[in-house]
Amino acid sequence: MVFKFQINKDVEFNHDDDLLKKADQYRPKLLTNKISAKRLVELTDDPSKLENTGIKEVGDIEQLAQLKMTRNDHVIIDFGQHCVGKFAIHIEHVGSPMDAPVAFKVKFAEMPNEFRYDSQDYDGWLSKSWIQEEVIHLDRLPAELELPRRYSFRYVELSVIDTSPKWFAVFSKPTATIQSAVSSTNLRKPDFKDDKLNAIYQVGINTLQDCMQDVFEDGPKRDRRLWLGDLRLQALANYASFDNTALVKRCLYLFGAMTAKDGRISANVFTNQPYVPDDTFMYDYSLFFISTLADLEKHEKDEEVLTDLYPIAKKQWEYTRRFIGDNGEVVPDQQYVTFVDWSNDFDKTTAGQAITIYVLRQLIALAKMINDPELAKYEQELEKLKNFATDNQFDPQTGLFVSGKKREVNIASQVWMVLAHVMDDETNHQIMTKTVNKLFPVRGIATPYMYHHIDQALFEAEMKDEAIKLMKEYWGKMVDLGADTFWEAFEPENPAYSPYDSPIENSFCHAWSCTPIWLLSKYMSD
Amino acid sequence: MVFKFQINKDVEFNHDDDLLKKADQYRPKLLTNKISAKRLVELTDDPSKLENTGIKEVGDIEQLAQLKMTRNDHVIIDFGQHCVGKFAIHIEHVGSPMDAPVAFKVKFAEMPNEFRYDSQDYDGWLSKSWIQEEVIHLDRLPAELELPRRYSFRYVELSVIDTSPKWFAVFSKPTATIQSAVSSTNLRKPDFKDDKLNAIYQVGINTLQDCMQDVFEDGPKRDRRLWLGDLRLQALANYASFDNTALVKRCLYLFGAMTAKDGRISANVFTNQPYVPDDTFMYDYSLFFISTLADLEKHEKDEEVLTDLYPIAKKQWEYTRRFIGDNGEVVPDQQYVTFVDWSNDFDKTTAGQAITIYVLRQLIALAKMINDPELAKYEQELEKLKNFATDNQFDPQTGLFVSGKKREVNIASQVWMVLAHVMDDETNHQIMTKTVNKLFPVRGIATPYMYHHIDQALFEAEMKDEAIKLMKEYWGKMVDLGADTFWEAFEPENPAYSPYDSPIENSFCHAWSCTPIWLLSKYMSD
Repeated sequence: MVFKFQINKDVEFNHDDDLLKKADQYRPKLLTNKISAKRLVELTDDPSKLENTGIKEVGDIEQLAQLKMTRNDHVIIDFGQHCVGKFAIHIEHVGSPMDAPVAFKVKFAEMPNEFRYDSQDYDGWLSKSWIQEEVIHLDRLPAELELPRRYSFRYVELSVIDTSPKWFAVFSKPTATIQSAVSSTNLRKPDFKDDKLNAIYQVGINTLQDCMQDVFEDGPKRDRRLWLGDLRLQALANYASFDNTALVKRCLYLFGAMTAKDGRISANVFTNQPYVPDDTFMYDYSLFFISTLADLEKHEKDEEVLTDLYPIAKKQWEYTRRFIGDNGEVVPDQQYVTFVDWSNDFDKTTAGQAITIYVLRQLIALAKMINDPELAKYEQELEKLKNFATDNQFDPQTGLFVSGKKREVNIASQVWMVLAHVMDDETNHQIMTKTVNKLFPVRGIATPYMYHHIDQALFEAEMKDEAIKLMKEYWGKMVDLGADTFWEAFEPENPAYSPYDSPIENSFCHAWSCTPIWLLSKYMSD
Repeated sequence: MVFKFQINKDVEFNHDDDLLKKADQYRPKLLTNKISAKRLVELTDDPSKLENTGIKEVGDIEQLAQLKMTRNDHVIIDFGQHCVGKFAIHIEHVGSPMDAPVAFKVKFAEMPNEFRYDSQDYDGWLSKSWIQEEVIHLDRLPAELELPRRYSFRYVELSVIDTSPKWFAVFSKPTATIQSAVSSTNLRKPDFKDDKLNAIYQVGINTLQDCMQDVFEDGPKRDRRLWLGDLRLQALANYASFDNTALVKRCLYLFGAMTAKDGRISANVFTNQPYVPDDTFMYDYSLFFISTLADLEKHEKDEEVLTDLYPIAKKQWEYTRRFIGDNGEVVPDQQYVTFVDWSNDFDKTTAGQAITIYVLRQLIALAKMINDPELAKYEQELEKLKNFATDNQFDPQTGLFVSGKKREVNIASQVWMVLAHVMDDETNHQIMTKTVNKLFPVRGIATPYMYHHIDQALFEAEMKDEAIKLMKEYWGKMVDLGADTFWEAFEPENPAYSPYDSPIENSFCHAWSCTPIWLLSKYMSD
């Protein structure tokens, strides 16, 4: 994910070398694999694909070496799969001696529609530096060009800026050295007896695998960063598939080692440099440290990790207390926003209350494991929080939760209250039934992150059919539109939506969207 | 120089390994020197400078590190001198953690007016790949950026494409590691008791030094190539200054080792790769192999070089004979053009006749050194050529040479006939006097190469004042317009002229313009 900018320059951070050492002990050795490009393609107008942009094959990859290219010539290479890694290509010249350098542009795209945009036209708020393109000048040919940076792509467009009128450039043998912390070679894939679900599962696997690098990245194109809220979902999907718990532990140690002096955990950390926590903080993301630790310990009990990180998890709770009134009301703070979703068009008060309850339940589970004498206190706090929710945020007349002073009825409140199991199962079923009947179709939600919670709430409320229907309408629609990996942002009612004013900045492989892996495994396995 | 494209794919070349080995024995060890940038400047509107583009200082170089740069910010760094070499700079970031790559453009310019043009707009016939700019993406800062390519520049513009809204890029310590085969540190510079001449001499030295690299390059920005006609002039200027004869020998061996199967010498060779002669041939350039060898042997007798290369020089003459009629007339050939100058707006027949005579005199000088039994034959041929010129190409009525069927009277014919000393000294003086009175001012000539021959002819005709006047009007005007080194192309009546439709493709350090060094030394030393 990326969260529109907070700047908190004055925050000071702890730096626990012992915990960082443990994070490094869990550092993965990346697996690499050199693959060849598959074919040459060109863009087509295809109304069934994202932004009406399809592809069609115009030649096999061997034909690349037949193309004599000069000023303004271009070609699109298709690797046939989403790749995260380094790009290399052989370049020669044919004709008279090389009387000038060769200059060309290399543009990487995860989805064909990205080629419809020119980076120079981008004027949105996100950094233009994310746009994956390079301008190369080579004084001598032949050359083996090995670009030093890592890219996230399926397609590579080569555009010759110039050769000279006396000779042509000839490109051949494009390869990608792809990398991940995990391999899917021996991965056992369940069969859901449903082509669409099987396809959704596979695209989820592709997404998760390509985001599992030196840490769990949010997206390998952008921001290539470890976010806590995203980690929580990636870890769950990982337990249900690759089951690489070492990488989860590494990430938890990274967050745990670099808390702010006031105890809070940063929403994300940078790991592509000396480890640095970001100066961005979010109420729910900090709390999800507790959640992620609890999910790990539930999946694979690890005493050492628990002993090391439980005190830090506790501190998140201790910091959170200042936002909880004596009556059990979570009072939102403008300086410590609750994310829930990118959209700020709905009231997040009740969702924030529910997330607090959801997480406190997991802290209690951890407290039990470690025999924390404060367990009883947590349980009292839980009761207060729940009571406030049922007494003040649930409207018995409508059978739905309301949020904020205007008593807004929105999907997020219902979903998180169901996930937090504030009401009994029967009521939860009724809440989600009403949600589907009265609040659906979902509108104005662009994140798979929020769709995940809606979908999980349907499963939790024993509405499997509705959950599968929504999954197919959301993740299935991405597959239909041409996704090889799931996207950072997708609004089914407005497929071309970009939170950044242009799809060239979109991340089309973004891990918070891979959760059908977990949902299908958890709720659809026999 | 660059000559608009010939393509002769079918030409086969010899490849004499013994001669190439000798070329390599004379390969220079390049001298390098790391220098710091001097100041920050911005462009000004200054009618006294080339294309009304001057510069003004806006800060010393230490202030660069004070600039916090983000999207669309740019700054121009001035090295205070023309540089040929590699560029390095230190880059850090300030503000929040680096949440995106930094992307920026680095643009190199020899002259300030180049910054007025955008490379994207260039649509001329010359390769856009020569435009000296790079787009850099760096995933991590701080970084020591050392660009791997060599550039030719005085000014470097850094333009930030983007950082992110959360932090700034800070550049510092820009350096150039400049290189040349020669050093001017201990060079004795004559004093001509004339500020303008001293300035012209100095700019000539800068030009020659920066073109003396692994070979004598025509221009270090573009085409960075060894041309025979340019070599001849560079060698002369070099004898009068740095006096590095090894580099001349290296270049002669390179040309001599790679003649076409028919004996002709290519107009230029590529040395930035496995040595390759170009498939471009020009009548006068091939002949100038004789001239350059004769000039060398006159300056510094070298038996080995003479023995090795005289046979190849002879072959140029033998090939040339097919273009000479029994009456001594040189008959131009469309496939083997006579260059004389870029302009094709004047008839080159008589200039070609004169160049043939000029070179044959030098072949005769070589033949005498080596006691070639064919000497007498050469002398007979010389007489025939001269007789044809005096009988058919000189108009006794006007006292000027005419050229072609239309008996055109142009400057080039007079100049080359004077340089070839076809007439006696008195007549030559009259010819050049009439040239000045009737054909001056020079119009439509854009090459310092042709201006050099005009100026030398004035000196040869004992018209020192006119020669100095022309030198100041031509080379002096470049100095006035802001030249740190002399230019590939300059038309005083049209200073913004570019043979390539845009000054960003012009080479503003081009060795065929450095010849005032030689002219002043030869004709103005006491």
